[in-house]
Amino acid sequence: MPRPVSEETPRQLAAGAADMLRHSGLAATTIRDVAKRSGAPLGSTYHYFPGGKDQLVTAAVRHTGDTIAEGLRFAMSQGPVAGVRLFLQGWRAALVASDCQVGCPVLVVAVESTSDELLRTAADVFGTWRSVIADGLREHLPAELAEQQATVILAAVEGATAMCRAQRDIAPFDHIVDYIAAALEDSLSRLAGS
Amino acid sequence: MPRPVSEETPRQLAAGAADMLRHSGLAATTIRDVAKRSGAPLGSTYHYFPGGKDQLVTAAVRHTGDTIAEGLRFAMSQGPVAGVRLFLQGWRAALVASDCQVGCPVLVVAVESTSDELLRTAADVFGTWRSVIADGLREHLPAELAEQQATVILAAVEGATAMCRAQRDIAPFDHIVDYIAAALEDSLSRLAGS
Repeated sequence: MPRPVSEETPRQLAAGAADMLRHSGLAATTIRDVAKRSGAPLGSTYHYFPGGKDQLVTAAVRHTGDTIAEGLRFAMSQGPVAGVRLFLQGWRAALVASDCQVGCPVLVVAVESTSDELLRTAADVFGTWRSVIADGLREHLPAELAEQQATVILAAVEGATAMCRAQRDIAPFDHIVDYIAAALEDSLSRLAGS
Repeated sequence: MPRPVSEETPRQLAAGAADMLRHSGLAATTIRDVAKRSGAPLGSTYHYFPGGKDQLVTAAVRHTGDTIAEGLRFAMSQGPVAGVRLFLQGWRAALVASDCQVGCPVLVVAVESTSDELLRTAADVFGTWRSVIADGLREHLPAELAEQQATVILAAVEGATAMCRAQRDIAPFDHIVDYIAAALEDSLSRLAGS
């Protein structure tokens, strides 16, 4: 039995909005364009998102949050260094596939929005991602260091993504990948040796 | 003798635009509001920036770039660890002074703009900041490691700034400050000992 349209359409619209945010930013993400891009009638967009653009963008940020968190949980189940590497490799592949023309929808909202609700949603998503990374590290590192490293990893990934988008080049991301992996291996081996 | 108005006004407008970008994002930064905020007549804004909003935003990004680069050069003249600490402390103070309601104008443009010229300008500014940090580290670290650390420092600062703005809290920035300072001291002391 195919999924009922009523479940699939809002998800498609949220994914479509995330895609527009990633490519074109917050101002350029309009309900009309998201509907067109997702192949959904404009009326159904307003039906599912009666709160308009802010509600659709909130759904897009949550959708991105859930998708990345799922990948992160799988990655971190492979162990701390392998997990962080897997996460960074996946993120890098997405940047390279777009010729470094895309950013992160959550970052877009965090820097460009002035809506309290949207900012809170972005903060929630960053918090979830950070927790998943920190939980994976906490089995191997002291809790405070795990929290710090998780914040640095996520902040460096987001900042480097913006740098790559600006310069249309993957080099900044490659710098942080090399550094983060080495720093993490180092922390772990020193703790193991202490 | 007071400075001629013709030099001061474009600078004031660029600074005003940087301030609006920092608080309200790219879409909300309009020529009319920047003129009002800077106390300049609208006509003079179009006189100095005949290319309109993109030209004004480019000037705002350059103005931010120059201001921060100057502070960074002074900071790094104090030595690698003291310099990076000073830079991070200055950036942190600006975030705290705004109750974490501001971001970085260059980051705003890097994630939200789709103009090739604006993106190039943002990339140039990131590149300059990274070089100033790397130059300060290169006297004490191997060139490749200095480049990597400079990229990580800048990327983590930008990413953490966005996280702080989203959650209206300085905690993510404090995480990266502690981590970066410790990692840097560690690299230096191990090189000194090797």
